[in-house]
This record gives sequence, C-alpha cells and structure tokens, in this order.
Amino acid sequence: MAAVGIVMGSDSDYGVMEEAARTLEEFGVDYEMKVSSAHRTLGRTVAWAETFAAGGGQVIIAAAGMAAHLAGMIAGAVTLPVVGVPIQSGALSGVDALYSTVQMPPGIPVAAVSVNGAKNAALLAVQILAVGDPKLRAALAAYRAALAAGVEAKDRALAARRNGEKP
Amino acid sequence: MAAVGIVMGSDSDYGVMEEAARTLEEFGVDYEMKVSSAHRTLGRTVAWAETFAAGGGQVIIAAAGMAAHLAGMIAGAVTLPVVGVPIQSGALSGVDALYSTVQMPPGIPVAAVSVNGAKNAALLAVQILAVGDPKLRAALAAYRAALAAGVEAKDRALAARRNGEKP
Amino acid sequence: MAAVGIVMGSDSDYGVMEEAARTLEEFGVDYEMKVSSAHRTLGRTVAWAETFAAGGGQVIIAAAGMAAHLAGMIAGAVTLPVVGVPIQSGALSGVDALYSTVQMPPGIPVAAVSVNGAKNAALLAVQILAVGDPKLRAALAAYRAALAAGVEAKDRALAARRNGEKP
Amino acid sequence: MAAVGIVMGSDSDYGVMEEAARTLEEFGVDYEMKVSSAHRTLGRTVAWAETFAAGGGQVIIAAAGMAAHLAGMIAGAVTLPVVGVPIQSGALSGVDALYSTVQMPPGIPVAAVSVNGAKNAALLAVQILAVGDPKLRAALAAYRAALAAGVEAKDRALAARRNGEKP
Amino acid sequence: MAAVGIVMGSDSDYGVMEEAARTLEEFGVDYEMKVSSAHRTLGRTVAWAETFAAGGGQVIIAAAGMAAHLAGMIAGAVTLPVVGVPIQSGALSGVDALYSTVQMPPGIPVAAVSVNGAKNAALLAVQILAVGDPKLRAALAAYRAALAAGVEAKDRALAARRNGEKP
Amino acid sequence: MAAVGIVMGSDSDYGVMEEAARTLEEFGVDYEMKVSSAHRTLGRTVAWAETFAAGGGQVIIAAAGMAAHLAGMIAGAVTLPVVGVPIQSGALSGVDALYSTVQMPPGIPVAAVSVNGAKNAALLAVQILAVGDPKLRAALAAYRAALAAGVEAKDRALAARRNGEKP
Amino acid sequence: MAAVGIVMGSDSDYGVMEEAARTLEEFGVDYEMKVSSAHRTLGRTVAWAETFAAGGGQVIIAAAGMAAHLAGMIAGAVTLPVVGVPIQSGALSGVDALYSTVQMPPGIPVAAVSVNGAKNAALLAVQILAVGDPKLRAALAAYRAALAAGVEAKDRALAARRNGEKP
Amino acid sequence: MAAVGIVMGSDSDYGVMEEAARTLEEFGVDYEMKVSSAHRTLGRTVAWAETFAAGGGQVIIAAAGMAAHLAGMIAGAVTLPVVGVPIQSGALSGVDALYSTVQMPPGIPVAAVSVNGAKNAALLAVQILAVGDPKLRAALAAYRAALAAGVEAKDRALAARRNGEKP
Repeated sequence: MAAVGIVMGSDSDYGVMEEAARTLEEFGVDYEMKVSSAHRTLGRTVAWAETFAAGGGQVIIAAAGMAAHLAGMIAGAVTLPVVGVPIQSGALSGVDALYSTVQMPPGIPVAAVSVNGAKNAALLAVQILAVGDPKLRAALAAYRAALAAGVEAKDRALAARRNGEKP
Repeated sequence: MAAVGIVMGSDSDYGVMEEAARTLEEFGVDYEMKVSSAHRTLGRTVAWAETFAAGGGQVIIAAAGMAAHLAGMIAGAVTLPVVGVPIQSGALSGVDALYSTVQMPPGIPVAAVSVNGAKNAALLAVQILAVGDPKLRAALAAYRAALAAGVEAKDRALAARRNGEKP
Repeated sequence: MAAVGIVMGSDSDYGVMEEAARTLEEFGVDYEMKVSSAHRTLGRTVAWAETFAAGGGQVIIAAAGMAAHLAGMIAGAVTLPVVGVPIQSGALSGVDALYSTVQMPPGIPVAAVSVNGAKNAALLAVQILAVGDPKLRAALAAYRAALAAGVEAKDRALAARRNGEKP
Repeated sequence: MAAVGIVMGSDSDYGVMEEAARTLEEFGVDYEMKVSSAHRTLGRTVAWAETFAAGGGQVIIAAAGMAAHLAGMIAGAVTLPVVGVPIQSGALSGVDALYSTVQMPPGIPVAAVSVNGAKNAALLAVQILAVGDPKLRAALAAYRAALAAGVEAKDRALAARRNGEKP
Repeated sequence: MAAVGIVMGSDSDYGVMEEAARTLEEFGVDYEMKVSSAHRTLGRTVAWAETFAAGGGQVIIAAAGMAAHLAGMIAGAVTLPVVGVPIQSGALSGVDALYSTVQMPPGIPVAAVSVNGAKNAALLAVQILAVGDPKLRAALAAYRAALAAGVEAKDRALAARRNGEKP
Repeated sequence: MAAVGIVMGSDSDYGVMEEAARTLEEFGVDYEMKVSSAHRTLGRTVAWAETFAAGGGQVIIAAAGMAAHLAGMIAGAVTLPVVGVPIQSGALSGVDALYSTVQMPPGIPVAAVSVNGAKNAALLAVQILAVGDPKLRAALAAYRAALAAGVEAKDRALAARRNGEKP
Repeated sequence: MAAVGIVMGSDSDYGVMEEAARTLEEFGVDYEMKVSSAHRTLGRTVAWAETFAAGGGQVIIAAAGMAAHLAGMIAGAVTLPVVGVPIQSGALSGVDALYSTVQMPPGIPVAAVSVNGAKNAALLAVQILAVGDPKLRAALAAYRAALAAGVEAKDRALAARRNGEKP
Repeated sequence: MAAVGIVMGSDSDYGVMEEAARTLEEFGVDYEMKVSSAHRTLGRTVAWAETFAAGGGQVIIAAAGMAAHLAGMIAGAVTLPVVGVPIQSGALSGVDALYSTVQMPPGIPVAAVSVNGAKNAALLAVQILAVGDPKLRAALAAYRAALAAGVEAKDRALAARRNGEKP
C-alpha cells in the first residue's frame, strides 16, 4: 500500500495535480493516484478511502473544484490526515472550492492548502510522514536549502541583468 | 413513508428549519425530520437517504452551514430532487454554505434556495409535489393569493399610519 | 404543450443553455425554448409564463446574467417550480447573477443551480418530472450509472497513462 | 398625482425608507408611498408603476432587499427615472441587493444609490426634478450650504472638545 | 452649452464610454465629452463641473476605474444629477470602482449604473431630461418598443435556427 | 518537549484557542502554549519555533487574525507540519486572516483550517501524530464513534421534542 | 504649523481616530485635527490641505468610510505623503472604504492602512517623520521594544494562568 | 547605501516592479533591488532589512503575491516606513495579497498601495524622502504638473479625434 493517496474529483484536475505526484517522487514517497468523484461515485470514493486507510495508507490528498466536497467527505470516512486542494474552475475562480474545502465544521478537519496548491499539498504530506521518518526530515531540510539557494540565484540573476541593462 | 424528508447537519439548525416544517404542515404535506451529518455520520446519512428514496419519499430538503456538503452528498446518493438550504453560521456568515450548496459540478444537481431560506425550501418542495397533484396546485394558488393580500394589507396599514402621523 | 420551458434573457445565453436542451433530449423530455427578457419584454415574459403554466407546462428553467431577475419574476408569475441558471457575464463574472437568482425573499422560491449550470438545471427538471414518472426515474438511475462508469473509465485511463509514462 | 413615488418591497423596509419621505418633505416635494412586492404582487406593482407614470408621476424610488428585483422590474415597466435603494437584510448584508439593483443589463437603467441610501435616493429625485425647476435648484444650493455649515460646526465642536480635554 | 457632460478619468475609458455618446446621439441629445481626472487635475475637474452647471448643463455622466472618485467629487461640486459609471480595470475587475461610485455617504448622491454600463448611463440621462421634455418621452417609448421588437426577433431567430437544426 | 506547540499572535486569541488545548488534553497529547507575535516579536517567534523543532516538537498550531502571518512565518522557519487557524477579528471578519493563512506560495505549506477552527486544528495535530501512533489512531476512532453517537442522540432528541409538541 | 494633519470625513469617525491622536502625543509629535468632508465641503477640504502643505505640514492622515474619497482627494491636492484610514461603517463593513482608499490609480499614491487602523496610521506618520529625525527613530525603537515586552508579559501571564488552572 | 530598497518575493514579480525602479530613476533617487522571500529565505530577508536600515536606507518597498507576508515581516524587523505592493497572481487575483498586506495588526504599520501599484509605491517613497528634501518636493510638483498636462493633452486629443470623426 502506498503511503499517500492522491484523489481528484475529475480527470480535468490532473493538469494541476500532477505536480503533487512529481513532488512526492522527488522525495521518494510512494503514492497512488485516483480519479473518484464525491458525487458521481460516492460509494466507490468512500470505499477506496476506507480500503486505503485499512491497508496502511497514511495521508490522503483530495482535490476538487466548485462545491468541492471530496476532501471533506473523505475526512468523514477515515481518520487519516486529509489534505484538501481547492481547484480553480468555473465562474467563481476557486473561491467556492476554497470555502467548501477549508470551512469544515468542528470534529472533522481538512488541512486546506491554497487554490491549485498541488505542490504544497504534497510537501505537507511529506512533512506529516517526516514526523516519524528522520530520512524525510533530512530530505525536507535539503529541499528548503535548495529553495533558498534558488531565491539567492534569482537575486543574483536580477542583479546581473540590471547591471547589464545599465552599464 | 413521508413525501418530504428534512435533514439538517446539526440540531443547531433547527431554529431556522422549523419554518420549513411549519410551511409543509400548512400545506398538509407529510414529512419526516432528521439530524444527520455529512461528515460525522456519513454512512448513516447516505443510508437514510437511500431508504427514504426506496420507500417512496419524493423530495429531500437538506440544510447545513459552513462547508455545507450535506445537500450535495445526498444528491449524489439518490436521484430525488434535493433542495439545499445554506445556513448562516460562523465567520463567513453563510457565503461559504451558499457556495458549497449551489456550485455543484455537472451531473448532480442541488436546488439551492437563499441562505436560511427554510420557508422557500418547503414551498419549492410543495411546488415539486404539485406537479402531479392538482389539490396542491390549488393550495399554492391560494397561498399566493394570501401573500398578495398580505402585501396589500400592509400597504393600507402604511397609508393609514402615515395619514395618522400627518393629519 | 411541452413539459419544460427554457427561457433565457438574451440570445447570447444560448451558448450556455443549449446544453440544457441537449440534456432534456437525452431523457426524451419535451421542451420549448424562448428568448424573453425580464426587463425589455416584461409583459410578454409574464404572459408566456402564465400561458405555459395554464397549458400544462410543468417546470420552467430561466437563465439570465448580471442583475438576473428573470427566474424570480417568472416565479412570481406562476406556481410551477422555477429553476434559475445564473449566467456568467460582465465584470462581476456571475456573482451578481448568482445572488440575484438565489437570494429570493420568503414566499417565492427559485431553485438555483450553479453559475452556467445549464446541464444541472435540465437534470433537476428531469428529477422533478420523475417524481410522478417511473420511466424517468429509471432513466435517471441509468444516467447515474453511466456517470459513475465514466468516472471509473477516466480513473483507468489515468492509471494507464501514468503506467505508460513511467514504464 | 405626486411627483415622486416611493415603493418598497416589504413594510419592514419602512424604517429605512421613511428618511426618503422626510427628505422629500424638507424640499416640499409631493410623493406617495407604497408597499408593493416584485414577486408577491407582480401584476399590481407593474400596474401601479404604469398608472403612476401615465398620471404624471416623474421619478420612482424603489427599495428592496436580498434578490432586489423591484427597481429593475419597475424600470422595465415605465421609462421614468427609477432610483434603486438596496436594503441591508439577511445573511449577505445587502451585497445581494446591491448587485441585484445596480447590475442592470443594457437598455433598462436603474440609478442605484448606496445600501440603505434612502436619503440620497430622495436627494437624487429632487436633483432630477430640479433640472426643470429653478426653485428646487435654489433649495438644493441652500441644502448644500447647510450641509457644509454642519460640517464646519462639527469641526469647531471637535476643536472645542479637544481644547477642553487638554487645557 | 450641451445638456449632458460626459467626463472620464482617463482616455483609456473611451472604449467603454463612446457607447454613451452614441446613445445620446441616437436621441438627439447634445453633449460634450471630456477627459479630466479626479486626482491628477482636481481643480480643473471641479472648475469644469461648476462651469458646466452654471452654463445650463443639466446632467453629468462621470466614468472612472479603481478607486473611482470622479463621480463623487463632481457630485460634491455641483447639484446636478451625476450618473456614475464604474469602469472595469485592474486586479479587482471593477468591484473597487463600483463600491467607490455607489457607496456615497448621505447628503451627496451619485446615480450609479452597472460596471461598464455606459449605455445605461446615457439612457438614464435621457430619462432625466425627458422629465421636462415630452418629445424625449416619446423617443424613449419608441426606443423601448424597438428593444422589445429586438428581443422578439431574436426569439424567432432562435426558433428558426433550432427548427433548422432538427428537421 | 511537548509534541504540539500552540502559538497565538495575541492573548486576545486565547478565548478561541483554549478549545485546541482542551481537545489535545482529551487525547492525552502533550502541548505547550505561547503568545508570540509574527510582527512585534519576530525574532523571538522564529527562535521559539526553531527550538521547538530542534527539541523534538512535532506539530505546530499557529493562530492569528487580520493579516495573519504567524503560521506562514513559522512554516518558513521549520519543516514541521504547521496548522494555521485564521482568527475572526476586525472589519473583514476573518476573510483576511483566512486568505493570509491558506494562500501560501509554492514551497512552504500551511495546513489551514476554518476561521476560528481551533478544535479542528487540534484534531488535525492528533491525526498527524496518529500516523506513527496506533494508540492515537484508536483514540481517534473512538472519538469519531462518540461524535456519531452524539448526532444520533440529537436526532432522537429532536424526534422526541417534536412528538411532544404535536401529541 | 503642526507636522501631522489628521482629517476625518465625519465627526462620527472620531471614536476611531482619537487613537491616532493619542499615539502621536505618545511620540511628542505635533498635530492638528479636522473634520472636513470630501463631498460636503470639497473646496474647504482642498484649501485646508493646500494651506497645511504650504505652511510646512509634513504628513496628512485622512479617514473616511463608505465611498471613502477623502484621502485620495487630498493626495490629488498636495504632494505630501497621505495616509488613508478606511473606516468601518454601513452595510459593507469597510470593504468599500478599503477599496476606495487603497486602489488609487497610477500617479497619485495613498498609503493605506487597515480598516479602522488609526494607531498604525499614526505610527506610519511617525516613521515618515523619523526618516529625518534621529530622536524619533530612537523613540520608535523604544516603542518596538515596549511592544515586544508587552507580548512577552502576556505570554508569561498566559503561562501563569494556565498553571493556576491546572495545579 | 541606497535611499530606497525594493524587495520582491519572487523574480516573477519583476515585470510589475520594474516600473517602481524606473519611477525612482526619474526622480534621481538611488535604490537597490532584491529578490528575497518571506518564507523561503526568511532569515536572509530579515538580515537584509536590518542591514539596509542600519546602513542608512530610508524607505523599503516590498512586493509579494498570494499570502503576501513580505512587507509585514520586514515592517516587523525594522522601523523604516515600509510600502507594500500586493501582486496580482493566482486564483484570487490579488485580493489575497491585498488583505495580507494592508490588514496589519496594531503596532506594526505597512503603507499599502493598490494591487500591482508599483509606480505609486515609488512615488510614495519619493514623497516620504521629500519631507526632508526640498529638491524632491520641487520635482514632485513638476511631476504633478506634467501629469496634469498629460491629462489635458489627452482631453484635447479626444476632442480632435471626435471632431475628425464627425466633420
């Protein structure tokens, strides 16, 4: 059984969610990826979540747009940490999905990330797994160092570019 | 089996939803009323909806606040018309519940009414039942006539009050 | 007389609303389709709604953008169930149409669906008609099964695609 | 026939709208005041507006809350200038009424004022009447001078108060 | 002196506002058109408004985007009716301009139309002038009849198109 | 070192956040609780977070209102999972805090819960700890069963109350 | 001439703005305080701002609610730094004032602080004056140290209180 | 040491922020420009701000999108005036960045400008520096005169264009 399950309400969310997959791969974290709908395949979605949890899965990432019930429904079905990714789509541009994901009533939490925040959802899953995994903690530290180095490189590139522009 | 099922996510919604019950009673429409949560009692809620539909129930009114998944989840479980009532609660004052209720993705409709619109939810249920019931159609016509008469009476009362104030 | 009337405030809404027509055709439900404006042809709109109701019409779907008064006005004119479709247009991107459609005052309900939710409006109309029509109930069940099968097929396609990508 | 018609969708709006009446009285402008609903008494509302316009009425002020269709419906029924007052009520606190009032589609304007802006609605009506009435123009000039004097008096009072506090 | 003054905060608003000009021309209403900024040419804007009012101008249409102060500032400078057109621009897509235009404090009204509602602003100006001008009232009636005929023509075109599609 | 650190930007947040403490106590999870500000004591906050992480702390819950930077800043300082609680305060009623908490840019996730969602923040922390702790998993299962039983009890109470009312 | 001018659109804003005055007093910064309206006393407001600037005034703090034009208008009249304080009032709870204050078009900046952010407006004015005043810089450093000490004291008080509660 | 520091959270903000640089150059104001992130390089960002302030820097302009913590974090680290530029990006189109920037809690002000308001941020920095610099005050006066002349030229161009169109 994979450690992380990524489930999305529609295959149209894949363009956003593949970044979550890539990020987990970067950290060597096993995952499975599903299309399963809160409304069109309610029973199947709940069954998958229960099976995933029973089989030793540890974190679920659930992504959906509009009235995004997927993360909350799964959070009601299992007690694993559920990370919710609101997807930007339709006229309300993701505000609807954000509110539907984050405003869970007391008792059943969802860990919401930003609209279309697939990468952060994966990182959060890694952080959760790292609580019990020193190797992942080290990998996260390295990742952060690389992030910081990237900012510093861009800062130098900007300085170089501006020096070039005003010689 | 009652024709209409009223289900609310929390008993704190009862203060709003009892107006739906009263309105159905006014029209002589049988109903049952449940507290059942989309997240805390997911399986029980789905089971109730399926039983209600299988037993001949005809319309479901579902009310919830915040990330209001109740109406959408039930709409995914049965093919009866589901009327969703977003409940005003918490910091976002019901906008979250409104978006969570009305912005259903294609395939699984919810008929949303206004935030706290319990009375209109009941009237919509009556209108749906009236499609096949001439007596209810007549009762709706009478209800509308009474509404209109009420406006007219208030108009006269305002005129009288203002005349009294400026004699 | 058709069972369902689809009315839109402007012919520019047709691009969205033809999906409602297609969906009703899928279910073999008779409909008529009108362009009629709440403001530019007020009297004609009210007259059409009254004629439609008097002639045995059973559900009205009304679509409009911006200050979308069409559904509410028709709901005030007849006691049939009125499904309102807020259309996305202009600077406010459909939030104006959503609020104008869903926030009906007590006494005169509109059944609002999502912004641009033409397909769901049609499905809701079918669900309403199905209350008194076992054949439509069966068709809805088949539709749901097909929806579910579609999700499952997309789930398999995603799995295949990902297996192909990482062989 | 009065020059100005004030119509409100519900007598609960009277607490806000009596300030419009008082303001018109201050300017000696004749008005009539009605409770009439866009939805509960649609035909009566349209008939009143048409009669008011035919009888020489010159400006209509229409106030409503939630999905506030009253001003727009009257604007569709007559060609008089219609001033719309969105009323604050319900969970959305008047944003719904504002959008329903101001976002009129091309062809049928409503002159919207602020949420609960009863006084400004009356002043706008006076300004419209003043286009053809030099006495009203003079009264408006005097009103503005008094407004300015009021601000100046409050400025002096603040100065006095602060001097008193820090002697 | 023209009857209507159209003033916009930036020449980038001209693409929207030329429809106001065209509409006034349709009604044979004289106007002048200005670019003048509330902030960059405050004194000149106020001076123009005062001169326009003193010279017999009768209605001002003021259009601006973002923190749209133009209509309100002019409304503070003269007692003519001022119609405000919020312009859609920038990140907030015109909601900022709408609130800045319509939410005037008590005492100084602005008649707000919809975001980018240039045509309705012109029609409102014509309606205001028509209060004292029977010829304009007749022209407005004809305009409304043409609007209605346009809707009816589009309704017939839709019917024809659909008949052609399903022969 | 406690497993969970609860930090709030102001002691005025304590009224909300003590529910997080109580919930952790219910699960027998050790925690420490701090008042520390993102802006007024920036260095101290960062230092505390680094010390907490270095000493074996496992999850941080950070609560703040308005421009709520606390959770994001701590998330930038350590790689532990950080749960953000937007606090309702001030004119924008917590929407500002929600956006400031949830809309983290890629690379540095925060797990946002609902506005004032202190209980859910604690439950999420427990779920994270339960990934590596079978006893906590069992406690969560028991908690969920109690939640469900509570809903069922309220449902029975509602039925009893309604039976009593209509005997 | 005082260094800082505090101007508010209405004396009802004084309850909020006196905190700005108190904060300036804490820093020993001279100020004057005015009630002057952008709309009701346009000319007087502009004249005051010009006189204040000409006489050596250095920073202006302008506070207004609803369509809050005061800060922007003054920013158009002088080239001093203008700090805008949106005031919470009316149905839109200060969002209108915030957008009207902060969304200034290019060329004429306003330095906006939070809704009702009177204290921060004063602190910003002090920071601006401190650019050329080492004594104020030292006072700001001391103020910050006191803020930090206050947070630390509250943190200790919380610890004490909690220890007391769980002995 | 430059007088103004421009810091942005990501090099993707450069397209917006180079206008701030150009504007400072127009006024002959020295600046330095940095890419530094509130979250990915927290310590480095704080260290830079402290060094900049200690070395005599006078104003900081900080730009960031989404949960824009950069300006507020820097404002917590130094007592210089900090001008915050919310950047439009992502699903919420800059409203998130605006709220995260402007809604600072009492004690630590940020001077917010409009979303993407890079030019105004630079002008505000110049205005702040001009408090102690008569040459900059003169340059600002000239800049304003040029702005006004630009509006007047556009006004003449519009008049010419319209005259050409209707000869």
